[in-house]
Amino acid sequence: MSIARELRVEGQRIGLVPTMGALHEGHLSLVDRASSTCDKVVVSVFVNPLQFGPAEDFGRYPRDLARDAELAFTRGVDFIFAPSVEEMFPAGFGTFIDVDQLSGRLEGASRPGHFRGVATVVAKLFNIIHPSFAFFGRKDAQQSILIKRMVRDLSIDVEVVICPIVREADGLAISSRNAYLDVEQRAAAVVLRRALERCRTLYSGGERDSARLIQAMRSILAAEPLASVDYVAITDTRDLSQILVISPDSPALVSMAVRLGHTRLIDNIVLNGDL
Amino acid sequence: MSIARELRVEGQRIGLVPTMGALHEGHLSLVDRASSTCDKVVVSVFVNPLQFGPAEDFGRYPRDLARDAELAFTRGVDFIFAPSVEEMFPAGFGTFIDVDQLSGRLEGASRPGHFRGVATVVAKLFNIIHPSFAFFGRKDAQQSILIKRMVRDLSIDVEVVICPIVREADGLAISSRNAYLDVEQRAAAVVLRRALERCRTLYSGGERDSARLIQAMRSILAAEPLASVDYVAITDTRDLSQILVISPDSPALVSMAVRLGHTRLIDNIVLNGDL
Repeated sequence: MSIARELRVEGQRIGLVPTMGALHEGHLSLVDRASSTCDKVVVSVFVNPLQFGPAEDFGRYPRDLARDAELAFTRGVDFIFAPSVEEMFPAGFGTFIDVDQLSGRLEGASRPGHFRGVATVVAKLFNIIHPSFAFFGRKDAQQSILIKRMVRDLSIDVEVVICPIVREADGLAISSRNAYLDVEQRAAAVVLRRALERCRTLYSGGERDSARLIQAMRSILAAEPLASVDYVAITDTRDLSQILVISPDSPALVSMAVRLGHTRLIDNIVLNGDL
Repeated sequence: MSIARELRVEGQRIGLVPTMGALHEGHLSLVDRASSTCDKVVVSVFVNPLQFGPAEDFGRYPRDLARDAELAFTRGVDFIFAPSVEEMFPAGFGTFIDVDQLSGRLEGASRPGHFRGVATVVAKLFNIIHPSFAFFGRKDAQQSILIKRMVRDLSIDVEVVICPIVREADGLAISSRNAYLDVEQRAAAVVLRRALERCRTLYSGGERDSARLIQAMRSILAAEPLASVDYVAITDTRDLSQILVISPDSPALVSMAVRLGHTRLIDNIVLNGDL
Protein backbone atom coordinates (compact mmCIF):
# COMPACT_ATOMS: atom_id res chain seq x y z
CA MET A 1 0.00 0.00 0.00
CA SER A 2 2.17 2.80 -1.29
CA ILE A 3 -0.21 5.43 0.06
CA ALA A 4 0.66 4.31 3.56
CA ARG A 5 4.34 4.61 2.82
CA GLU A 6 3.92 8.13 1.47
CA LEU A 7 1.86 9.25 4.40
CA ARG A 8 4.43 7.79 6.75
CA VAL A 9 7.24 9.63 5.06
CA GLU A 10 5.22 12.82 5.40
CA GLY A 11 5.00 12.10 9.11
CA GLN A 12 1.23 11.85 9.20
CA ARG A 13 -0.40 9.87 11.97
CA ILE A 14 -2.42 7.09 10.41
CA GLY A 15 -5.25 5.55 12.42
CA LEU A 16 -6.44 2.09 11.44
CA VAL A 17 -9.87 0.70 12.27
CA PRO A 18 -9.80 -2.99 11.28
CA THR A 19 -13.27 -4.35 10.56
CA MET A 20 -15.00 -7.21 8.82
CA GLY A 21 -17.40 -4.71 7.26
CA ALA A 22 -21.11 -4.71 8.07
CA LEU A 23 -20.30 -1.38 9.71
CA HIS A 24 -22.45 -0.21 12.58
CA GLU A 25 -22.31 2.45 15.28
CA GLY A 26 -19.75 0.41 17.16
CA HIS A 27 -17.30 0.61 14.28
CA LEU A 28 -18.19 4.24 13.64
CA SER A 29 -17.42 5.11 17.23
CA LEU A 30 -13.92 3.75 16.54
CA VAL A 31 -13.76 5.93 13.45
CA ASP A 32 -14.70 8.97 15.53
CA ARG A 33 -12.04 8.14 18.07
CA ALA A 34 -9.48 7.65 15.30
CA SER A 35 -10.43 10.96 13.67
CA SER A 36 -9.87 12.76 16.96
CA THR A 37 -6.33 11.34 17.30
CA CYS A 38 -4.99 10.88 13.78
CA ASP A 39 -4.37 12.84 10.60
CA LYS A 40 -5.69 10.11 8.33
CA VAL A 41 -8.13 7.32 9.13
CA VAL A 42 -8.06 4.01 7.30
CA VAL A 43 -10.86 1.46 7.70
CA SER A 44 -10.02 -2.04 6.56
CA VAL A 45 -12.93 -4.19 5.46
CA PHE A 46 -12.01 -7.85 5.28
CA VAL A 47 -14.05 -10.87 6.26
CA ASN A 48 -11.10 -12.93 7.38
CA PRO A 49 -11.58 -16.63 6.64
CA LEU A 50 -8.75 -17.60 9.02
CA GLN A 51 -10.74 -16.55 12.06
CA PHE A 52 -13.86 -18.56 11.27
CA GLY A 53 -14.21 -22.21 12.23
CA PRO A 54 -15.49 -24.66 9.61
CA ALA A 55 -18.96 -24.71 11.18
CA GLU A 56 -19.12 -20.95 11.62
CA ASP A 57 -20.77 -18.21 9.61
CA PHE A 58 -18.01 -17.19 7.18
CA GLY A 59 -20.22 -17.85 4.18
CA ARG A 60 -23.26 -15.94 5.38
CA TYR A 61 -21.44 -13.14 7.21
CA PRO A 62 -23.02 -9.91 5.92
CA ARG A 63 -21.05 -8.23 3.11
CA ASP A 64 -22.01 -4.91 1.53
CA LEU A 65 -18.93 -2.90 0.62
CA ALA A 66 -20.87 -0.12 -1.10
CA ARG A 67 -22.89 0.52 2.03
CA ASP A 68 -19.81 0.24 4.24
CA ALA A 69 -17.93 2.71 2.06
CA GLU A 70 -20.75 5.21 2.15
CA LEU A 71 -21.06 4.97 5.92
CA ALA A 72 -17.31 5.27 6.38
CA PHE A 73 -16.69 8.15 4.00
CA THR A 74 -19.71 10.03 5.35
CA ARG A 75 -18.17 9.66 8.79
CA GLY A 76 -14.89 11.17 7.60
CA VAL A 77 -12.79 8.11 6.83
CA ASP A 78 -9.95 8.88 4.41
CA PHE A 79 -9.19 5.44 2.98
CA ILE A 80 -10.90 2.08 2.83
CA PHE A 81 -8.73 -0.97 2.39
CA ALA A 82 -10.83 -3.88 1.18
CA PRO A 83 -8.56 -6.64 -0.11
CA SER A 84 -9.76 -9.92 -1.53
CA VAL A 85 -9.05 -13.20 0.23
CA GLU A 86 -6.62 -14.04 -2.59
CA GLU A 87 -4.69 -10.83 -2.01
CA MET A 88 -4.40 -11.44 1.71
CA PHE A 89 -3.90 -15.19 1.62
CA PRO A 90 -2.62 -16.28 -1.78
CA ALA A 91 -2.00 -19.93 -2.56
CA GLY A 92 0.90 -21.22 -0.47
CA PHE A 93 0.23 -18.85 2.39
CA GLY A 94 1.51 -20.50 5.54
CA THR A 95 2.69 -18.05 8.21
CA PHE A 96 0.69 -17.77 11.41
CA ILE A 97 0.95 -15.89 14.67
CA ASP A 98 -0.05 -17.45 17.96
CA VAL A 99 -0.44 -15.63 21.23
CA ASP A 100 -0.05 -18.74 23.25
CA GLN A 101 -1.42 -18.29 26.71
CA LEU A 102 -4.32 -16.10 25.66
CA SER A 103 -5.58 -17.95 22.61
CA GLY A 104 -6.99 -21.07 24.19
CA ARG A 105 -9.19 -19.47 26.81
CA LEU A 106 -12.79 -18.15 26.74
CA GLU A 107 -13.58 -17.48 23.07
CA GLY A 108 -10.55 -19.51 22.06
CA ALA A 109 -11.84 -22.57 23.90
CA SER A 110 -15.12 -22.35 21.97
CA ARG A 111 -13.49 -21.29 18.70
CA PRO A 112 -10.22 -23.19 18.11
CA GLY A 113 -7.95 -21.36 15.70
CA HIS A 114 -9.98 -18.17 15.92
CA PHE A 115 -7.29 -16.08 17.56
CA ARG A 116 -4.51 -17.46 15.38
CA GLY A 117 -6.57 -16.08 12.50
CA VAL A 118 -7.15 -12.77 14.26
CA ALA A 119 -3.53 -12.24 15.26
CA THR A 120 -2.24 -13.18 11.82
CA VAL A 121 -4.56 -10.92 9.87
CA VAL A 122 -4.14 -7.97 12.22
CA ALA A 123 -0.35 -8.19 12.07
CA LYS A 124 -0.57 -8.34 8.29
CA LEU A 125 -2.86 -5.30 8.20
CA PHE A 126 -0.43 -3.44 10.45
CA ASN A 127 2.42 -4.31 8.07
CA ILE A 128 0.49 -3.15 5.03
CA ILE A 129 -0.98 0.05 6.44
CA HIS A 130 1.66 1.06 9.00
CA PRO A 131 -0.75 2.81 11.32
CA SER A 132 0.49 4.84 14.26
CA PHE A 133 -2.71 3.95 16.12
CA ALA A 134 -5.14 1.07 15.78
CA PHE A 135 -8.61 1.08 17.27
CA PHE A 136 -10.50 -1.94 18.58
CA GLY A 137 -13.77 -2.28 20.42
CA ARG A 138 -13.85 -3.63 23.95
CA LYS A 139 -16.79 -5.83 23.03
CA ASP A 140 -14.20 -8.21 21.66
CA ALA A 141 -12.35 -8.03 24.94
CA GLN A 142 -10.17 -11.07 24.46
CA GLN A 143 -9.23 -9.91 20.98
CA SER A 144 -8.30 -6.52 22.43
CA ILE A 145 -6.12 -8.08 25.11
CA LEU A 146 -4.52 -10.43 22.63
CA ILE A 147 -3.71 -7.71 20.10
CA LYS A 148 -2.16 -5.58 22.80
CA ARG A 149 -0.08 -8.54 23.92
CA MET A 150 1.02 -9.34 20.37
CA VAL A 151 2.00 -5.73 19.76
CA ARG A 152 4.03 -5.64 22.96
CA ASP A 153 5.64 -9.05 22.44
CA LEU A 154 6.64 -8.45 18.83
CA SER A 155 7.51 -4.75 19.38
CA ILE A 156 5.07 -3.69 16.69
CA ASP A 157 5.25 0.07 16.31
CA VAL A 158 1.57 0.87 16.78
CA GLU A 159 -0.46 2.16 19.69
CA VAL A 160 -3.50 0.00 20.32
CA VAL A 161 -6.51 1.93 21.56
CA ILE A 162 -9.41 0.01 23.09
CA CYS A 163 -12.76 1.81 22.89
CA PRO A 164 -15.96 1.35 24.89
CA ILE A 165 -18.81 -0.92 23.91
CA VAL A 166 -21.61 0.83 22.04
CA ARG A 167 -25.08 -0.40 22.93
CA GLU A 168 -28.59 -0.26 21.54
CA ALA A 169 -31.18 1.68 23.53
CA ASP A 170 -32.15 -1.46 25.46
CA GLY A 171 -28.55 -2.26 26.33
CA LEU A 172 -27.72 -4.93 23.76
CA ALA A 173 -24.12 -4.57 22.61
CA ILE A 174 -24.11 -3.58 18.94
CA SER A 175 -22.80 -6.37 16.73
CA SER A 176 -22.97 -7.24 13.07
CA ARG A 177 -24.30 -10.62 14.14
CA ASN A 178 -27.36 -9.04 15.78
CA ALA A 179 -28.77 -8.98 12.24
CA TYR A 180 -29.10 -12.76 12.45
CA LEU A 181 -31.62 -12.52 15.30
CA ASP A 182 -35.33 -12.87 14.71
CA VAL A 183 -37.72 -10.63 16.62
CA GLU A 184 -38.06 -12.92 19.61
CA GLN A 185 -34.36 -13.63 19.81
CA ARG A 186 -33.65 -9.93 19.54
CA ALA A 187 -35.92 -9.25 22.49
CA ALA A 188 -34.33 -12.08 24.46
CA ALA A 189 -30.80 -10.85 23.68
CA VAL A 190 -30.93 -8.16 26.34
CA VAL A 191 -30.45 -10.95 28.85
CA LEU A 192 -26.65 -10.74 28.40
CA ARG A 193 -26.60 -7.13 29.47
CA ARG A 194 -29.05 -7.79 32.29
CA ALA A 195 -26.84 -10.55 33.66
CA LEU A 196 -23.75 -8.33 33.48
CA GLU A 197 -25.56 -5.49 35.25
CA ARG A 198 -26.63 -7.87 37.98
CA CYS A 199 -22.98 -8.79 38.42
CA ARG A 200 -21.98 -5.15 38.68
CA THR A 201 -24.72 -4.46 41.21
CA LEU A 202 -23.70 -7.40 43.39
CA TYR A 203 -20.05 -6.39 43.12
CA SER A 204 -20.91 -2.84 44.13
CA GLY A 205 -22.77 -4.32 47.08
CA GLY A 206 -19.60 -6.03 48.24
CA GLU A 207 -19.72 -9.49 46.63
CA ARG A 208 -16.19 -10.55 45.69
CA ASP A 209 -16.61 -14.26 45.15
CA SER A 210 -16.49 -15.11 41.45
CA ALA A 211 -18.41 -18.36 41.79
CA ARG A 212 -21.37 -16.57 43.40
CA LEU A 213 -21.29 -13.77 40.85
CA ILE A 214 -21.17 -16.26 37.99
CA GLN A 215 -24.02 -18.22 39.58
CA ALA A 216 -26.12 -15.07 39.77
CA MET A 217 -25.47 -14.32 36.10
CA ARG A 218 -26.18 -17.88 35.07
CA SER A 219 -29.51 -17.75 36.93
CA ILE A 220 -30.59 -14.74 34.92
CA LEU A 221 -29.46 -16.33 31.66
CA ALA A 222 -31.19 -19.62 32.57
CA ALA A 223 -34.47 -17.76 33.04
CA GLU A 224 -34.42 -16.86 29.35
CA PRO A 225 -35.62 -19.96 27.48
CA LEU A 226 -34.22 -18.85 24.12
CA ALA A 227 -30.70 -18.45 25.52
CA SER A 228 -28.13 -21.17 25.98
CA VAL A 229 -24.89 -20.33 27.74
CA ASP A 230 -21.55 -21.04 26.14
CA TYR A 231 -19.50 -19.62 29.00
CA VAL A 232 -19.65 -17.06 31.78
CA ALA A 233 -16.25 -16.19 33.21
CA ILE A 234 -14.46 -13.76 35.48
CA THR A 235 -10.82 -13.49 34.50
CA ASP A 236 -7.70 -11.46 34.97
CA THR A 237 -7.45 -8.89 32.18
CA ARG A 238 -3.73 -9.52 31.81
CA ASP A 239 -3.62 -13.25 31.14
CA LEU A 240 -7.31 -14.27 31.17
CA SER A 241 -6.68 -16.66 34.04
CA GLN A 242 -9.68 -17.33 36.26
CA ILE A 243 -10.16 -15.06 39.23
CA LEU A 244 -11.61 -16.79 42.27
CA VAL A 245 -11.91 -13.77 44.53
CA ILE A 246 -11.94 -10.34 42.95
CA SER A 247 -9.39 -7.92 44.35
CA PRO A 248 -10.22 -4.21 44.19
CA ASP A 249 -6.64 -3.63 43.06
CA SER A 250 -6.76 -5.34 39.68
CA PRO A 251 -9.18 -5.20 36.77
CA ALA A 252 -11.47 -8.17 36.28
CA LEU A 253 -13.05 -9.06 32.96
CA VAL A 254 -16.57 -10.41 33.34
CA SER A 255 -17.42 -11.97 30.00
CA MET A 256 -19.93 -14.32 28.47
CA ALA A 257 -20.93 -16.00 25.24
CA VAL A 258 -24.58 -16.96 24.82
CA ARG A 259 -26.37 -18.60 21.92
CA LEU A 260 -29.77 -17.48 20.71
CA GLY A 261 -30.73 -20.05 18.13
CA HIS A 262 -27.74 -20.32 15.82
CA THR A 263 -26.45 -16.88 16.73
CA ARG A 264 -23.64 -16.61 19.23
CA LEU A 265 -23.42 -13.29 21.09
CA ILE A 266 -20.72 -12.04 23.40
CA ASP A 267 -20.68 -9.23 25.92
CA ASN A 268 -18.58 -8.12 28.86
CA ILE A 269 -17.90 -5.57 31.54
CA VAL A 270 -14.65 -4.76 33.29
CA LEU A 271 -14.67 -4.26 37.04
CA ASN A 272 -11.98 -2.07 38.65
CA GLY A 273 -10.68 -0.37 35.59
CA ASP A 274 -10.40 -1.13 31.92
CA LEU A 275 -8.45 -3.25 29.45
CA MET B 1 14.56 2.14 18.85
CA SER B 2 13.91 5.80 18.25
CA ILE B 3 17.02 6.10 16.04
CA ALA B 4 15.34 3.81 13.53
CA ARG B 5 12.23 5.95 13.56
CA GLU B 6 14.22 9.10 12.95
CA LEU B 7 16.19 7.58 10.12
CA ARG B 8 12.99 6.34 8.59
CA VAL B 9 11.41 9.77 8.73
CA GLU B 10 14.52 11.14 7.05
CA GLY B 11 13.97 8.60 4.29
CA GLN B 12 17.24 6.78 4.82
CA ARG B 13 17.54 3.19 3.70
CA ILE B 14 18.40 1.08 6.71
CA GLY B 15 20.06 -2.29 6.15
CA LEU B 16 19.84 -4.87 8.90
CA VAL B 17 22.25 -7.77 9.34
CA PRO B 18 20.78 -9.99 12.06
CA THR B 19 23.44 -12.07 13.82
CA MET B 20 24.04 -14.03 16.98
CA GLY B 21 27.42 -12.35 17.32
CA ALA B 22 30.68 -14.30 17.06
CA LEU B 23 31.11 -12.32 13.87
CA HIS B 24 33.19 -13.81 11.09
CA GLU B 25 33.83 -13.14 7.42
CA GLY B 26 30.45 -14.59 6.54
CA HIS B 27 28.68 -11.93 8.60
CA LEU B 28 31.06 -9.26 7.38
CA SER B 29 30.29 -10.13 3.77
CA LEU B 30 26.65 -9.36 4.63
CA VAL B 31 27.77 -6.05 6.11
CA ASP B 32 29.64 -5.24 2.89
CA ARG B 33 26.60 -6.07 0.83
CA ALA B 34 24.41 -3.96 3.12
CA SER B 35 26.82 -1.02 2.91
CA SER B 36 26.68 -1.12 -0.87
CA THR B 37 22.87 -0.92 -0.86
CA CYS B 38 21.87 1.12 2.20
CA ASP B 39 22.51 4.48 3.83
CA LYS B 40 22.87 3.07 7.32
CA VAL B 41 23.81 -0.44 8.38
CA VAL B 42 22.59 -1.97 11.63
CA VAL B 43 24.00 -5.23 12.95
CA SER B 44 21.95 -6.93 15.61
CA VAL B 45 23.81 -9.18 18.01
CA PHE B 46 21.50 -11.45 19.94
CA VAL B 47 21.97 -15.07 20.91
CA ASN B 48 18.31 -15.97 20.67
CA PRO B 49 17.31 -18.56 23.26
CA LEU B 50 14.08 -19.35 21.39
CA GLN B 51 15.93 -20.96 18.52
CA PHE B 52 18.01 -23.35 20.62
CA GLY B 53 16.71 -26.73 21.72
CA PRO B 54 17.19 -27.75 25.37
CA ALA B 55 20.11 -30.04 24.46
CA GLU B 56 21.75 -27.51 22.18
CA ASP B 57 24.61 -25.07 22.68
CA PHE B 58 22.83 -21.92 23.88
CA GLY B 59 24.92 -21.79 27.04
CA ARG B 60 28.30 -22.23 25.39
CA TYR B 61 27.59 -20.32 22.18
CA PRO B 62 30.52 -17.87 21.81
CA ARG B 63 29.77 -14.36 23.09
CA ASP B 64 32.20 -11.44 22.83
CA LEU B 65 30.36 -8.20 22.19
CA ALA B 66 33.47 -6.02 22.46
CA ARG B 67 35.19 -7.99 19.71
CA ASP B 68 32.02 -8.07 17.60
CA ALA B 69 31.59 -4.32 17.95
CA GLU B 70 35.17 -3.66 16.93
CA LEU B 71 34.90 -5.90 13.88
CA ALA B 72 31.57 -4.37 12.89
CA PHE B 73 32.49 -0.71 13.34
CA THR B 74 35.82 -1.26 11.60
CA ARG B 75 33.86 -2.67 8.67
CA GLY B 76 31.68 0.44 8.51
CA VAL B 77 28.61 -0.60 10.50
CA ASP B 78 26.67 2.41 11.81
CA PHE B 79 24.72 0.88 14.69
CA ILE B 80 24.90 -2.28 16.75
CA PHE B 81 21.71 -3.43 18.43
CA ALA B 82 22.57 -5.86 21.23
CA PRO B 83 19.54 -6.33 23.46
CA SER B 84 19.43 -8.57 26.51
CA VAL B 85 17.22 -11.64 26.62
CA GLU B 86 15.04 -9.81 29.14
CA GLU B 87 14.55 -6.90 26.77
CA MET B 88 13.58 -9.15 23.90
CA PHE B 89 11.59 -11.73 25.84
CA PRO B 90 10.40 -10.26 29.12
CA ALA B 91 8.42 -12.33 31.60
CA GLY B 92 5.03 -13.16 30.15
CA PHE B 93 6.25 -13.16 26.56
CA GLY B 94 4.04 -15.49 24.59
CA THR B 95 3.66 -14.55 20.92
CA PHE B 96 5.20 -16.81 18.31
CA ILE B 97 5.34 -16.98 14.54
CA ASP B 98 5.19 -20.26 12.69
CA VAL B 99 5.90 -20.73 9.01
CA ASP B 100 4.01 -23.95 8.86
CA GLN B 101 5.02 -25.95 5.88
CA LEU B 102 8.68 -24.96 5.97
CA SER B 103 9.41 -25.30 9.67
CA GLY B 104 9.21 -29.05 10.13
CA ARG B 105 11.53 -30.12 7.32
CA LEU B 106 15.34 -30.57 7.13
CA GLU B 107 16.77 -28.50 10.01
CA GLY B 108 13.33 -28.26 11.54
CA ALA B 109 13.01 -32.05 11.72
CA SER B 110 16.29 -32.23 13.62
CA ARG B 111 15.66 -29.08 15.66
CA PRO B 112 12.00 -28.86 16.74
CA GLY B 113 10.99 -25.30 17.59
CA HIS B 114 14.12 -23.85 15.98
CA PHE B 115 12.35 -22.02 13.18
CA ARG B 116 9.54 -20.78 15.41
CA GLY B 117 12.32 -19.11 17.39
CA VAL B 118 14.00 -17.76 14.27
CA ALA B 119 10.82 -16.39 12.70
CA THR B 120 9.69 -14.79 15.94
CA VAL B 121 12.95 -13.04 16.72
CA VAL B 122 13.51 -11.87 13.15
CA ALA B 123 10.01 -10.39 12.93
CA LYS B 124 10.61 -8.65 16.24
CA LEU B 125 13.95 -7.27 15.03
CA PHE B 126 12.25 -6.01 11.87
CA ASN B 127 9.60 -4.28 13.98
CA ILE B 128 12.20 -2.63 16.19
CA ILE B 129 14.68 -1.57 13.54
CA HIS B 130 12.40 -1.02 10.51
CA PRO B 131 15.01 -1.92 7.93
CA SER B 132 14.37 -1.40 4.25
CA PHE B 133 16.66 -4.35 3.53
CA ALA B 134 17.71 -7.34 5.59
CA PHE B 135 20.67 -9.54 4.74
CA PHE B 136 20.97 -13.25 5.43
CA GLY B 137 23.56 -15.82 4.44
CA ARG B 138 22.64 -18.68 2.16
CA LYS B 139 24.51 -21.07 4.42
CA ASP B 140 21.34 -21.07 6.49
CA ALA B 141 19.34 -21.87 3.39
CA GLN B 142 16.18 -23.01 5.10
CA GLN B 143 16.23 -19.94 7.33
CA SER B 144 16.62 -17.77 4.24
CA ILE B 145 13.68 -19.41 2.51
CA LEU B 146 11.56 -19.24 5.65
CA ILE B 147 12.26 -15.56 6.28
CA LYS B 148 11.42 -14.71 2.69
CA ARG B 149 8.18 -16.64 3.03
CA MET B 150 7.30 -14.96 6.32
CA VAL B 151 7.97 -11.53 4.85
CA ARG B 152 5.79 -12.27 1.85
CA ASP B 153 2.99 -13.91 3.84
CA LEU B 154 2.78 -11.18 6.48
CA SER B 155 3.45 -8.34 4.01
CA ILE B 156 6.43 -7.16 6.03
CA ASP B 157 7.86 -4.06 4.40
CA VAL B 158 11.45 -5.23 4.03
CA GLU B 159 13.45 -6.62 1.15
CA VAL B 160 15.24 -9.82 2.10
CA VAL B 161 18.60 -10.25 0.42
CA ILE B 162 20.24 -13.67 0.46
CA CYS B 163 24.02 -13.60 0.11
CA PRO B 164 26.48 -16.30 -0.96
CA ILE B 165 28.24 -18.69 1.40
CA VAL B 166 31.71 -17.55 2.43
CA ARG B 167 34.23 -20.36 2.74
CA GLU B 168 37.63 -21.00 4.26
CA ALA B 169 40.53 -21.63 1.90
CA ASP B 170 39.88 -25.39 2.00
CA GLY B 171 36.19 -24.95 1.23
CA LEU B 172 34.64 -25.29 4.68
CA ALA B 173 31.68 -22.94 5.02
CA ILE B 174 32.53 -20.31 7.62
CA SER B 175 30.46 -20.71 10.78
CA SER B 176 30.70 -19.54 14.35
CA ARG B 177 30.37 -23.18 15.35
CA ASN B 178 33.60 -24.11 13.52
CA ALA B 179 35.32 -22.81 16.66
CA TYR B 180 34.03 -25.90 18.49
CA LEU B 181 36.05 -28.23 16.26
CA ASP B 182 39.35 -29.73 17.40
CA VAL B 183 42.20 -30.02 14.91
CA GLU B 184 41.20 -33.43 13.60
CA GLN B 185 37.53 -32.53 13.33
CA ARG B 186 38.47 -29.30 11.56
CA ALA B 187 40.43 -31.27 8.98
CA ALA B 188 37.58 -33.74 8.59
CA ALA B 189 35.00 -30.97 8.18
CA VAL B 190 35.93 -30.38 4.54
CA VAL B 191 34.03 -33.57 3.80
CA LEU B 192 30.75 -31.62 3.59
CA ARG B 193 32.06 -29.44 0.84
CA ARG B 194 33.64 -32.41 -0.93
CA ALA B 195 30.34 -34.26 -0.94
CA LEU B 196 28.51 -31.22 -2.32
CA GLU B 197 31.10 -30.75 -5.04
CA ARG B 198 30.73 -34.38 -6.00
CA CYS B 199 27.01 -33.80 -6.35
CA ARG B 200 27.59 -30.80 -8.58
CA THR B 201 30.03 -32.72 -10.74
CA LEU B 202 27.63 -35.62 -11.18
CA TYR B 203 24.79 -33.21 -11.91
CA SER B 204 26.92 -31.41 -14.51
CA GLY B 205 27.63 -34.82 -16.00
CA GLY B 206 23.93 -35.39 -16.51
CA GLU B 207 22.80 -37.21 -13.36
CA ARG B 208 19.28 -36.05 -12.44
CA ASP B 209 18.17 -38.75 -10.02
CA SER B 210 18.17 -37.43 -6.46
CA ALA B 211 18.52 -40.85 -4.85
CA ARG B 212 21.71 -41.55 -6.76
CA LEU B 213 23.12 -38.09 -6.06
CA ILE B 214 22.33 -38.45 -2.37
CA GLN B 215 23.90 -41.91 -2.34
CA ALA B 216 27.08 -40.51 -3.88
CA MET B 217 27.24 -37.78 -1.23
CA ARG B 218 26.55 -40.22 1.57
CA SER B 219 29.39 -42.48 0.33
CA ILE B 220 31.84 -39.61 0.61
CA LEU B 221 30.56 -38.67 4.06
CA ALA B 222 30.65 -42.30 5.20
CA ALA B 223 34.32 -42.52 4.26
CA GLU B 224 35.12 -39.92 6.92
CA PRO B 225 35.14 -41.79 10.25
CA LEU B 226 34.72 -38.62 12.36
CA ALA B 227 31.54 -37.58 10.51
CA SER B 228 28.04 -38.81 11.22
CA VAL B 229 25.25 -37.75 8.89
CA ASP B 230 22.13 -36.06 10.20
CA TYR B 231 20.53 -35.62 6.79
CA VAL B 232 21.37 -35.20 3.13
CA ALA B 233 18.51 -33.88 1.04
CA ILE B 234 17.61 -32.48 -2.36
CA THR B 235 14.55 -30.27 -2.11
CA ASP B 236 12.52 -27.69 -3.92
CA THR B 237 13.69 -24.23 -2.91
CA ARG B 238 10.12 -22.96 -2.72
CA ASP B 239 8.57 -25.38 -0.26
CA LEU B 240 11.46 -27.69 0.70
CA SER B 241 9.56 -30.70 -0.58
CA GLN B 242 11.72 -33.60 -1.76
CA ILE B 243 12.74 -33.62 -5.39
CA LEU B 244 12.96 -37.09 -6.89
CA VAL B 245 14.23 -36.11 -10.33
CA ILE B 246 15.87 -32.73 -10.74
CA SER B 247 14.42 -30.59 -13.50
CA PRO B 248 16.71 -28.05 -15.15
CA ASP B 249 13.85 -25.55 -14.94
CA SER B 250 13.64 -25.14 -11.18
CA PRO B 251 16.26 -24.54 -8.51
CA ALA B 252 17.13 -27.46 -6.27
CA LEU B 253 18.59 -27.06 -2.81
CA VAL B 254 21.16 -29.74 -2.00
CA SER B 255 21.69 -29.53 1.75
CA MET B 256 23.17 -31.54 4.56
CA ALA B 257 23.76 -31.56 8.29
CA VAL B 258 26.71 -33.57 9.60
CA ARG B 259 28.01 -34.04 13.11
CA LEU B 260 31.68 -33.99 13.98
CA GLY B 261 31.79 -34.98 17.61
CA HIS B 262 29.27 -32.75 19.36
CA THR B 263 29.42 -30.13 16.64
CA ARG B 264 26.70 -30.03 14.03
CA LEU B 265 27.65 -28.41 10.73
CA ILE B 266 25.44 -27.56 7.77
CA ASP B 267 26.27 -26.73 4.19
CA ASN B 268 24.47 -26.55 0.86
CA ILE B 269 24.58 -25.73 -2.81
CA VAL B 270 21.78 -24.67 -5.11
CA LEU B 271 21.53 -26.26 -8.54
CA ASN B 272 19.84 -24.33 -11.36
CA GLY B 273 19.71 -20.92 -9.77
CA ASP B 274 19.60 -19.48 -6.32
CA LEU B 275 17.28 -19.01 -3.36
